[in-house]
Amino acid sequence: MSNEIPFPGLKETNSAPADATRDFVFNQTMLRVKDPQKSVAFYTDVLGMTLLKRLDFPDMTFSLYFMAYHRPEDDPIPDDDTERAIYTFRQKATLELTHNWGTESDDTDYHNGNSDPRGFGHIGISVPDVYAACERFEKMGVEFVKRPDDGKMKGLAFIKDPDGYWIEILSAPSLGNMVAGKA
Amino acid sequence: MSNEIPFPGLKETNSAPADATRDFVFNQTMLRVKDPQKSVAFYTDVLGMTLLKRLDFPDMTFSLYFMAYHRPEDDPIPDDDTERAIYTFRQKATLELTHNWGTESDDTDYHNGNSDPRGFGHIGISVPDVYAACERFEKMGVEFVKRPDDGKMKGLAFIKDPDGYWIEILSAPSLGNMVAGKA
Repeated sequence: MSNEIPFPGLKETNSAPADATRDFVFNQTMLRVKDPQKSVAFYTDVLGMTLLKRLDFPDMTFSLYFMAYHRPEDDPIPDDDTERAIYTFRQKATLELTHNWGTESDDTDYHNGNSDPRGFGHIGISVPDVYAACERFEKMGVEFVKRPDDGKMKGLAFIKDPDGYWIEILSAPSLGNMVAGKA
Repeated sequence: MSNEIPFPGLKETNSAPADATRDFVFNQTMLRVKDPQKSVAFYTDVLGMTLLKRLDFPDMTFSLYFMAYHRPEDDPIPDDDTERAIYTFRQKATLELTHNWGTESDDTDYHNGNSDPRGFGHIGISVPDVYAACERFEKMGVEFVKRPDDGKMKGLAFIKDPDGYWIEILSAPSLGNMVAGKA
């Protein structure tokens, strides 16, 4: 393998999507979780998300927990059960946590995708201040894969959620300047 | 294991996040891809995303391709390289495709998380009309895990991307009504 940059023809564009894909929304990323009590607490208390929707499927013995950032400037969350589900499925960037009942007390241990066999890598949260965020995570006992000053990429961190999934903690201006080689 | 719904205390809330997490954004979901030419074409042509940012790391022999839905009503994408990177890292719901150079021509075969060892499940795209979307996917030769009328969950589909990652294709009103048991 040479060090020549591959696929130079794959260029950034500002092009509008095909009409047939108008109003498509990247709604969800689904991760299986062993213990929803730990996971919902983590995504709520540590990362500041809201449990937008819970769905239970007793026949198939699983439950879904849809987490998302909900801001005062966003549309209010409807109270009605159905409307709340529709609202959830319309949002950009929800995290769907799947709990197969019983995994919290058996030997289930989900695979985070970063050792063989690899695939999924991580989710990433953009924050105003990586150092301040990580200081708070540290105090809350969060496990780190990479602290902000570890390695070459200063000001970028990776933490683990309760199942060991990796979560990148990044600052848009700081990472943007770094990767564009202008920091 | 009983059929009793577990963790009844985990309830939906409308609560605002902790102040310390203000302005956190769920920015990215990272998936490794074998051949970016195939993957970028798929997410652009089939799913209607835009290649917001490409980043090459020759020293570490990998490239990143950030895909997202970009709409006419969104802020315009900056032309400047650094500003474009910062813009990308501020967005909600980008898909970060990681290409480790050379995988396109070796025996790399990424794991989609839905067979052992399980973990990550899928990403999901909310569309206005699942049947119309899937008819188009079918014509484009997309591989299906579940067609909209397969199984019990009518009007919900799963397709595969070029690496075999699953992508749920859902309609917010149709799925919302179905799961709330009111369809």
